[in-house]
Amino acid sequence: MEIRPELNADSRLPIYRQLGEYLQNLIEAGSLRPGEKLPPTRELAGHLGLNRTTVSAAYEMLEAGGLIHGEVGRGSFVRNGPAKQAEGLNWSYALAQSPTPSAAAGSRENLINFSSSRPSERQFPVAEFRECCREVLASAEMRSLMQLGSPAGYEPLRQYLLRRSSVARETDDILITNGCQQAVDLLSRALVKPGMKVAVEEPVYPGLKNLFLEAGAELIGVEVGPSGAEPYSLRRALEAGAKLVVLTPSFQNPTGATIPDAARRQIVAMVRAAGAILIENDIYSELAYAGPETTRLKALEPNVILLGSFSKIAFPGVRCGWIVAPKPVIARVTEFKQLADLHTDQLSQAFLLRFAESGALAAHQKNMVVAGREKIRAVSEAARKHLEGCTYTIPDGGMNLWVDLGDGLDAAALRGLAQRAGVDYMPGRQFSVARALDTGLRLSFVGLEVSEIRRGLEILGNVVREARTSRAGALAPAGWV
Amino acid sequence: MEIRPELNADSRLPIYRQLGEYLQNLIEAGSLRPGEKLPPTRELAGHLGLNRTTVSAAYEMLEAGGLIHGEVGRGSFVRNGPAKQAEGLNWSYALAQSPTPSAAAGSRENLINFSSSRPSERQFPVAEFRECCREVLASAEMRSLMQLGSPAGYEPLRQYLLRRSSVARETDDILITNGCQQAVDLLSRALVKPGMKVAVEEPVYPGLKNLFLEAGAELIGVEVGPSGAEPYSLRRALEAGAKLVVLTPSFQNPTGATIPDAARRQIVAMVRAAGAILIENDIYSELAYAGPETTRLKALEPNVILLGSFSKIAFPGVRCGWIVAPKPVIARVTEFKQLADLHTDQLSQAFLLRFAESGALAAHQKNMVVAGREKIRAVSEAARKHLEGCTYTIPDGGMNLWVDLGDGLDAAALRGLAQRAGVDYMPGRQFSVARALDTGLRLSFVGLEVSEIRRGLEILGNVVREARTSRAGALAPAGWV
Repeated sequence: MEIRPELNADSRLPIYRQLGEYLQNLIEAGSLRPGEKLPPTRELAGHLGLNRTTVSAAYEMLEAGGLIHGEVGRGSFVRNGPAKQAEGLNWSYALAQSPTPSAAAGSRENLINFSSSRPSERQFPVAEFRECCREVLASAEMRSLMQLGSPAGYEPLRQYLLRRSSVARETDDILITNGCQQAVDLLSRALVKPGMKVAVEEPVYPGLKNLFLEAGAELIGVEVGPSGAEPYSLRRALEAGAKLVVLTPSFQNPTGATIPDAARRQIVAMVRAAGAILIENDIYSELAYAGPETTRLKALEPNVILLGSFSKIAFPGVRCGWIVAPKPVIARVTEFKQLADLHTDQLSQAFLLRFAESGALAAHQKNMVVAGREKIRAVSEAARKHLEGCTYTIPDGGMNLWVDLGDGLDAAALRGLAQRAGVDYMPGRQFSVARALDTGLRLSFVGLEVSEIRRGLEILGNVVREARTSRAGALAPAGWV
Repeated sequence: MEIRPELNADSRLPIYRQLGEYLQNLIEAGSLRPGEKLPPTRELAGHLGLNRTTVSAAYEMLEAGGLIHGEVGRGSFVRNGPAKQAEGLNWSYALAQSPTPSAAAGSRENLINFSSSRPSERQFPVAEFRECCREVLASAEMRSLMQLGSPAGYEPLRQYLLRRSSVARETDDILITNGCQQAVDLLSRALVKPGMKVAVEEPVYPGLKNLFLEAGAELIGVEVGPSGAEPYSLRRALEAGAKLVVLTPSFQNPTGATIPDAARRQIVAMVRAAGAILIENDIYSELAYAGPETTRLKALEPNVILLGSFSKIAFPGVRCGWIVAPKPVIARVTEFKQLADLHTDQLSQAFLLRFAESGALAAHQKNMVVAGREKIRAVSEAARKHLEGCTYTIPDGGMNLWVDLGDGLDAAALRGLAQRAGVDYMPGRQFSVARALDTGLRLSFVGLEVSEIRRGLEILGNVVREARTSRAGALAPAGWV
């Protein structure tokens, strides 16, 4: 089977996707048959006058779609048709479109993995948490914790979190959710009508973007710069009719950027004047390694809907988040919570309350901050050393930073090579709203050790440098960018 | 303030709701002022020539809506306006409609409470479960359980449940959900397009009905008789265009009815011929007290989507349900799961797996069945003794039975009197799809002790008898039914 794609350098679609879709058509038409071997990337790249990175990215795309599979040392092969399926119903017709259309291929094992914004499990205070769990298990409350609970959450935890939040007012109430992701889901169900304009940061966390898209929102991107969401860009979004604004003011995911206090006041005033609703995603602010203290938006404006979670400051496997908001909001969102899953797991709520009340949470958080400070120092030094020609921000806290490769390098196309070299990251395109963000990528550094961060950035630096060089070479004969 | 409603006996709206809405208008217009006392039910009933039950029901409705509040021994008063609220946003305008429009007023304390379909917490095997939790806490796995997990669920639990289900095939896969309620939510997101016709049982569990309504489905009721969902009624639903059918074949909530095997075969064949999707809600079948063994729909048809849960056979406070379905369904629904809340709590999944594998679940289930058998015998005897003139089914398993008061008695209107007399139940209207079901009610008996069941049915019998008598008296002067 000869591979002769018609590639168009002027298309909005990147070359690697054009190639990927061409190959997909060949497979679906049966021209490339199950079990057939694809040409090695180097060979096909030479044949087509393309950069090898581009061909790798096309193969990655097919692998993510389940059309081909790679075998170590042997190459890539067309899969043996779809998995065996019961007869009688055409599920691909019956099922809704994927709600996570931009999901990247999963990360591989044995990599220095910068791709997941999660805490380091080596740091988990297992012994302390285990002790808190044991206390709850031994308590007389155990029986009632096993019974059906309240949709609003475990009452002692609700009261504790309202006190702890320090910005909750008499006019506020709280709902416990199955992690912060569910908080956003329930709010999108309670607040978004199809066609409603919702302003979100760009780049934005995909789990947030996809929920609002599922709810039928029309998204407007608010540009995030080194000082977080830009007020001038938010103003434009409001003028364009945004009625709901979702911001992560501190250590935003994916950029790590933080909005300074002066801009926060400006933002709150603008949103209030526009009569829009403001959701403050506040899951990272307690992981502050440096920089000035900031004021929460909720402290500036009582109508703000505040989201919190134990996932970043404690551990994400025990699912617990919350919403602090004006009482009418909590009342309605609690109805959606009951509809969605009745209530959040009771044992976990009781465990986390004990963990927080015992002081173990505060101690753990302190450790996280000390370690985070070291890690961000390692990131800063290694980036200066290895990421020449790239721009990046060094965040004051949280778990992520944003790197722009510059030079028209495509981070998605580069990912396969990076994985083969031993590092992984999340390509920028995942986080886009309207802009391409192809040259950007997110590095989540907190889950890694200092030594891994150093080694990982060195590898990444080499991959980027090689891609620049080889592309400079590949550009000449074929003229592709 | 004189109360002079224009009540229309020919209206589709029951008299108590007409009266309730009239009073609501007076309160909202300010004609009945905050703090003002409403006339005693007996007095207003005499004044309007109505049954006192009807007036009580109207007051209940206003209390459930937060417009009035009752004070023991003093009467009912108009509330002091809405709760204090932050200025600047009109939340009642911004928020979506309630997704649980038919939600009944909450049950009061110190009642013999037949209103909640949940297990008895007195029966929970706390010691055994505690031991299983302790084993998990002590295990080396603890650290990875605290880390972010897989959207599909904790792998060892997935494998265990696939083996345990006995009807899962090679073409199937499994997703762990945050209880069975979430399983329905995710399926409605993955399968229902607005305007799609969905056939559900009538009477139906409201949490199921409301989810499909939120997803924009057009519901068609399938009549449930003493032998469960009626094939002739399902046929009509399919002819009317139902593309998704949701059934609880064993010990259905709210009726307790079970579909016999012959009808199951008929149902599966009809759904297959219509090319519709079939969801089998199988959360009660393991609580079988009597009757012949039945075949699961999933065993008859590989394309069936099977729902299971630990909430009924173990304890509902630890949230864990699952979906067994053809692989393409699980793949898509897992994407919605990730979008909704990333994954189900990991500790709870590990606890429940240990509980099941240790044999403690099977032992507990055996105890539940023995106790359930005694309880249903008590229900049967007490119903025969006290519920004369009512029709009811005695289920072979599960947690619920359905009582029809007959004689045009309105179960919602009667509920206030029943509560005052010391028992509570769920009025039939909660479970309606298209029919009124006003004379029906659900009794959930498993959470109660045998002595409570006896006493509760005696009280209920007295309330019903009195209502029949007093109504017979009240009918004469005013002519209302």
